[in-house]
Amino acid sequence: MDHHRSLRKGFPEVVLGEGKTPQQVAEICQELARHSDVFLVTRTSEEAFRAVQVRVPEAVYRATACFIVLDRRQDLERLPGIAVLCGGTADLPVAEEAAITAEVMGCEVQRVYDVGVAGLHRLLSHLPLLQEARVLVVVAGMEGALPSLVAGLVSAPVIAVPTSIGYGAGFGGLAPLLTMLTSCAPGVAVVNIDNGFGAGYMAAVINLLASQESQATR
Amino acid sequence: MDHHRSLRKGFPEVVLGEGKTPQQVAEICQELARHSDVFLVTRTSEEAFRAVQVRVPEAVYRATACFIVLDRRQDLERLPGIAVLCGGTADLPVAEEAAITAEVMGCEVQRVYDVGVAGLHRLLSHLPLLQEARVLVVVAGMEGALPSLVAGLVSAPVIAVPTSIGYGAGFGGLAPLLTMLTSCAPGVAVVNIDNGFGAGYMAAVINLLASQESQATR
Amino acid sequence: MDHHRSLRKGFPEVVLGEGKTPQQVAEICQELARHSDVFLVTRTSEEAFRAVQVRVPEAVYRATACFIVLDRRQDLERLPGIAVLCGGTADLPVAEEAAITAEVMGCEVQRVYDVGVAGLHRLLSHLPLLQEARVLVVVAGMEGALPSLVAGLVSAPVIAVPTSIGYGAGFGGLAPLLTMLTSCAPGVAVVNIDNGFGAGYMAAVINLLASQESQATR
Amino acid sequence: MDHHRSLRKGFPEVVLGEGKTPQQVAEICQELARHSDVFLVTRTSEEAFRAVQVRVPEAVYRATACFIVLDRRQDLERLPGIAVLCGGTADLPVAEEAAITAEVMGCEVQRVYDVGVAGLHRLLSHLPLLQEARVLVVVAGMEGALPSLVAGLVSAPVIAVPTSIGYGAGFGGLAPLLTMLTSCAPGVAVVNIDNGFGAGYMAAVINLLASQESQATR
Amino acid sequence: MDHHRSLRKGFPEVVLGEGKTPQQVAEICQELARHSDVFLVTRTSEEAFRAVQVRVPEAVYRATACFIVLDRRQDLERLPGIAVLCGGTADLPVAEEAAITAEVMGCEVQRVYDVGVAGLHRLLSHLPLLQEARVLVVVAGMEGALPSLVAGLVSAPVIAVPTSIGYGAGFGGLAPLLTMLTSCAPGVAVVNIDNGFGAGYMAAVINLLASQESQATR
Amino acid sequence: MDHHRSLRKGFPEVVLGEGKTPQQVAEICQELARHSDVFLVTRTSEEAFRAVQVRVPEAVYRATACFIVLDRRQDLERLPGIAVLCGGTADLPVAEEAAITAEVMGCEVQRVYDVGVAGLHRLLSHLPLLQEARVLVVVAGMEGALPSLVAGLVSAPVIAVPTSIGYGAGFGGLAPLLTMLTSCAPGVAVVNIDNGFGAGYMAAVINLLASQESQATR
Amino acid sequence: MDHHRSLRKGFPEVVLGEGKTPQQVAEICQELARHSDVFLVTRTSEEAFRAVQVRVPEAVYRATACFIVLDRRQDLERLPGIAVLCGGTADLPVAEEAAITAEVMGCEVQRVYDVGVAGLHRLLSHLPLLQEARVLVVVAGMEGALPSLVAGLVSAPVIAVPTSIGYGAGFGGLAPLLTMLTSCAPGVAVVNIDNGFGAGYMAAVINLLASQESQATR
Amino acid sequence: MDHHRSLRKGFPEVVLGEGKTPQQVAEICQELARHSDVFLVTRTSEEAFRAVQVRVPEAVYRATACFIVLDRRQDLERLPGIAVLCGGTADLPVAEEAAITAEVMGCEVQRVYDVGVAGLHRLLSHLPLLQEARVLVVVAGMEGALPSLVAGLVSAPVIAVPTSIGYGAGFGGLAPLLTMLTSCAPGVAVVNIDNGFGAGYMAAVINLLASQESQATR
Repeated sequence: MDHHRSLRKGFPEVVLGEGKTPQQVAEICQELARHSDVFLVTRTSEEAFRAVQVRVPEAVYRATACFIVLDRRQDLERLPGIAVLCGGTADLPVAEEAAITAEVMGCEVQRVYDVGVAGLHRLLSHLPLLQEARVLVVVAGMEGALPSLVAGLVSAPVIAVPTSIGYGAGFGGLAPLLTMLTSCAPGVAVVNIDNGFGAGYMAAVINLLASQESQATR
Repeated sequence: MDHHRSLRKGFPEVVLGEGKTPQQVAEICQELARHSDVFLVTRTSEEAFRAVQVRVPEAVYRATACFIVLDRRQDLERLPGIAVLCGGTADLPVAEEAAITAEVMGCEVQRVYDVGVAGLHRLLSHLPLLQEARVLVVVAGMEGALPSLVAGLVSAPVIAVPTSIGYGAGFGGLAPLLTMLTSCAPGVAVVNIDNGFGAGYMAAVINLLASQESQATR
Repeated sequence: MDHHRSLRKGFPEVVLGEGKTPQQVAEICQELARHSDVFLVTRTSEEAFRAVQVRVPEAVYRATACFIVLDRRQDLERLPGIAVLCGGTADLPVAEEAAITAEVMGCEVQRVYDVGVAGLHRLLSHLPLLQEARVLVVVAGMEGALPSLVAGLVSAPVIAVPTSIGYGAGFGGLAPLLTMLTSCAPGVAVVNIDNGFGAGYMAAVINLLASQESQATR
Repeated sequence: MDHHRSLRKGFPEVVLGEGKTPQQVAEICQELARHSDVFLVTRTSEEAFRAVQVRVPEAVYRATACFIVLDRRQDLERLPGIAVLCGGTADLPVAEEAAITAEVMGCEVQRVYDVGVAGLHRLLSHLPLLQEARVLVVVAGMEGALPSLVAGLVSAPVIAVPTSIGYGAGFGGLAPLLTMLTSCAPGVAVVNIDNGFGAGYMAAVINLLASQESQATR
Repeated sequence: MDHHRSLRKGFPEVVLGEGKTPQQVAEICQELARHSDVFLVTRTSEEAFRAVQVRVPEAVYRATACFIVLDRRQDLERLPGIAVLCGGTADLPVAEEAAITAEVMGCEVQRVYDVGVAGLHRLLSHLPLLQEARVLVVVAGMEGALPSLVAGLVSAPVIAVPTSIGYGAGFGGLAPLLTMLTSCAPGVAVVNIDNGFGAGYMAAVINLLASQESQATR
Repeated sequence: MDHHRSLRKGFPEVVLGEGKTPQQVAEICQELARHSDVFLVTRTSEEAFRAVQVRVPEAVYRATACFIVLDRRQDLERLPGIAVLCGGTADLPVAEEAAITAEVMGCEVQRVYDVGVAGLHRLLSHLPLLQEARVLVVVAGMEGALPSLVAGLVSAPVIAVPTSIGYGAGFGGLAPLLTMLTSCAPGVAVVNIDNGFGAGYMAAVINLLASQESQATR
Repeated sequence: MDHHRSLRKGFPEVVLGEGKTPQQVAEICQELARHSDVFLVTRTSEEAFRAVQVRVPEAVYRATACFIVLDRRQDLERLPGIAVLCGGTADLPVAEEAAITAEVMGCEVQRVYDVGVAGLHRLLSHLPLLQEARVLVVVAGMEGALPSLVAGLVSAPVIAVPTSIGYGAGFGGLAPLLTMLTSCAPGVAVVNIDNGFGAGYMAAVINLLASQESQATR
Repeated sequence: MDHHRSLRKGFPEVVLGEGKTPQQVAEICQELARHSDVFLVTRTSEEAFRAVQVRVPEAVYRATACFIVLDRRQDLERLPGIAVLCGGTADLPVAEEAAITAEVMGCEVQRVYDVGVAGLHRLLSHLPLLQEARVLVVVAGMEGALPSLVAGLVSAPVIAVPTSIGYGAGFGGLAPLLTMLTSCAPGVAVVNIDNGFGAGYMAAVINLLASQESQATR
């Protein structure tokens, strides 16, 4: 079996769907479902989901993020602390990748999906929510300036995700990627273009650190 | 004589100093001073200025912008309407290029030199001044997000100037250049990296349009 | 609702159609039509327009620019002053984006669509028209030299729009983008590749400045 | 005063030394020393330090990282939890930037400076230390593969720092930057080329989160 | 006839299938089959194979690598010594290109297809096999760090093949290409992105050298 | 001896001076002077020339082009037909490289060194001269639009030479290089950035073709 | 009418077919056929040709080059002197673009379509033919080394055409483009990637120069 | 101690000199000299050598390659089989890096330093020598076409080394790097720009394989 992203102790299994046939995805999911209560297939399709459903009926399809998710855990108490921000329709799939990943990893996520650099008032209206977060995922295409702006308003770490949304000099996400890497606000680190999964994973790992800490000290 | 940037009716003569010896600059200035009351040498050096001074004693050196300026006009009334913004010490030379160019072209300039994306409060404290401007020049290096942010706060046109300030993924100004070109705020147009002169020129042309208009309709 | 490009006082609402389903576009337009007399959907499709038409029958489709436009204003007197130039068939959609945007924003536009660097006589035959314009939008693909040439012939500001037309070393618009940014003629500022909307918007804002001025001084 | 990186509640003041004269650095430091017990000047020089020393005698120069540091806090108990890794002499300055930044921000840092992809045994000999860390900063030039390798061995978040060390196809740090962004190991986020300060800052913010949490729950 | 890759004494004929119609491929294969016992068509399709099969019934299609192969040699004793490594499903086609090419050229190939930088234990479990190989082909997309890691574990030469697998900052294989070129482990040389054929060819040439040598010295 | 550019029948010997010590250049020139009446050292220095002068007293130094030239031919009748154009001081060294190369190869050269895209009238004032040329070399930095413009005015072939003059988005000559390659005027071919020698050589070869032809038909 | 490439005295009319509908192409051709005996439509399709055929029955379609050609001239004596070289099937369309363009412009063309860097003997077997040519067009994709090799064997000018054939590090023709621009053989000038038309046009202009010369001197 | 390139069983120790002070180099060499008979310092300076000489008097400096070498082995019989090719003065340092590395690793090296693509006859005059080699290192700057040409003439593996020699569109070695990666001749693998050491190491490893084989079979 090809666990592209072999995860570690206590984290759900994650499989990269891209480049696999529906049949291959279905077989992997069936195998995973045998010894695991939670798994995630990223960058997959509804067609692959229909093949999975036959073998793993509890699996669900999260269409915006193109994820297949199995989660048999009941009464899971999710740890609050993560906010995911983006500027609108176009960046939604990447933002949802991040949010669902963090949820599957046991975190509660605040979604703030209508903020942008050019509409400052909307961003500022969410300020209290942003300042309460323990870690923020900020998704942006076009010029990618949102993470810098957010990092100037909070003291928590910001995981920045450039998206390939845009045209011309956006060069498939290169423009927001460079923008985020050269951010003059400290407290920003960047993941690959369109890598919502990676950002959600990173945010969850950071958020859960805090929780483990507090358990350890109790 | 090599007038790299041959200007037009009513505008001062402009000479590109870069790539010319002090001797060459001095000869050109002496020639210009004969039939012109105002001229500008851009991207020049103090050494070139000393050679010019011998021949054109009224010329002055504007060190931050590396400009030699001759302006014999007296009682010139400058037209208000231009604001030039940047984030601090590093972008100052480019911002001053823009500001002095606009001044030599007959405009009055408001300088706002301590604003940045990561320090939103400072920017917002200048809001009334920004909203009064007829045209704004916004200079930024690093991630170059300032023009987008400003364009979201005003309805006047914004001339964005990326600078080569920064390191690593800034790639000599490429990062802010792409950021500015892909700005999601309308009302932004961009000039070449470090081209403060071009931005100041453009801003002055726009500002003076308004003035000519109002004269015409009177 | 996702107003990608939230415009400001007195300007029409603008919605980016790209990345939205016809259904989403139709819903947004219906909502906008309720409280607004003028709106613009950019980068959209005829299919989306048919969905809009059912709900907003006065909307029209401008096929060359891929725009849906609603404009209920009657007896609107458009302010002359804008010229839009391009070299032919291939650059037409971007030129029309600019021209229609400026018209919707209340300006009258002179279209000059058969000029190029290699056919200098055609350009020179339009010289009086060009020199009367208060602001010019110059659209060019391939090598993108037209804005430099035009800027050498007029004293008004030039908004340059590179297009992705061309092949090979054009690299999807990179060649004309760099050409325009490095123009040796002052008075040129650049917008993103294929961003006719942005150029038209910028030109209208500049043109209207003059008008506001003259009203203010009257 | 130009606080390039305006920090927030409880964090030391940070000043970017690059592009400032020794005189300018000294004046800023004198001002900071008046109302602050801790500050940091990054990317500065020994010459600047000598100018600072005259005015702020308690300041020290950390030569490897090119930092000037003032830290008047006594009996500060640093919070353990951060490991900083690099592969040797060439990447040391960037690694020390990260380590000293985290120390000034109140963290204790484990330095592991002799590990590389090609010498796996050395890396594996540090495994217990790596697995105890709450957050890891991994610095690498050349091909930049170390962060991926480390992230496969630990479950803590990894902040990856590409350096401009290398030649030819390293393209000034572009190669390790792309390597780190495309890492197939989840739990990696990236900062700008040579931005040891940013990585140390991010690591400290994450490490301190845990501490604040545990205080909050006690 | 167009033998894109004209091979040399004792090696099979190789034809590049890309850019040829099924009809053209079939005609070339028929011609080759007349005077040759072994040939290889690379980057071809099942459709082209069906056209070939009519004329050269002994030809077989190797679907994963998109190769058409004719091999009439009987009782061929293949020379052991080559290992081909990759990290999973996505890189398989390129790895199989390399493996089949080496086999057709008379070598025996050990396939190790489930190893990656993030799952070190799997790689280490194959260590004896790797250390026995006379030459290794290491295929990797994403960040492309596997060849460096392998080259640190063996003393045999490593032929590294970047693949275009990945997204965003992978830039179609540019990221792993640069990673492999800047590898800090000596004993690594690189072929073009996705060029499994070239790597398998190079590995076979090196492996056969040893055999020719031993024959020569006997 | 290292004749980097080994020339052919009837053409002068050419040596690339770059990367050679004055001593090495002097030795090569002494050797060449023994069996040849004409030679050319490109990209060399005055220091190298002084070393050459001791051994080859007839050699001269052409400072603008950084060429050492020996030409013992007397009463050489140069073939007219070549025009070399550029826009001013900054591009002069490259233009002179082209002009002197063509002269050494037996051609007469018309220099037109004050023309640019932004000053159309100067270019048009030279129109008769341009239209008489059998081949034109057009040198341009910045946006590099001059060759397109010239090619639209003449029917002779144009050899375009981008220069590294400019800053920012000129990217060391990349901008004019792309401009010239994507020229929409036919009859333009391009040589490497700053390669005045190559352009002059190409122009001379083309010009001499015509002469050989006319001799052949007489 | 949109004559993308407005040609000059005595040359056929040329229209760029790309980006035009069959209907548009047909209308332009009908118009051209009225006052012209020869025209050329480049980058067009068989579908467009069928629309043209209805209106201009003498037009023919040259499928390999994707050209529509009308040539009513009878007993035209073509001027020999041009050789067009390429390495095989993949580069054929671009080579044919060049060859047919030169033919339509009145030249006779020698096609040499089976030569490459890796098969030196085939190239050398054509040496007499190459050395007789007055100008050579050399088309190459992949690594693009053929023009350098050819230029080392002849004294005539070489027009080099990079093609977008290849994969991976060929980057859509960038690799052969750079190879050709940096050729160490003098006498090479380069046109845009895949621009067979431009190369054929340039070659014809050069070849015809010689002929005009010889007529002039007779 | 920082052994940047930790070598393996039976190979000499190698230290990267770049980025180390003479003092650091001297200390490392003294340490190495204690337990090793052979070592190599790459990318170092004569100044560093003078510091080494004091402590390790048997060390020698190989100025062209900028190597410090200690080799105490007596009567070492070097294994023939390696040829190193380059085109002249400029590429010599990289070629010598390769040659000396292979010699220190126990191989005998044939140097062929006056061959280039544009002077085919010189290359062909060495053909017997090239065809006898078991492995070839081919070094080339400018357009980098030599390895393709050589690989078409021999059946042994070719290790290609691009150099940063050249200007303009050579882009610091990018042009020959891409040329070599896209070579249409099989049997070519590439190392980093200017990485003569890596090529010599790879060639020696391949050459020694053959020798080990023949010993094993004896």
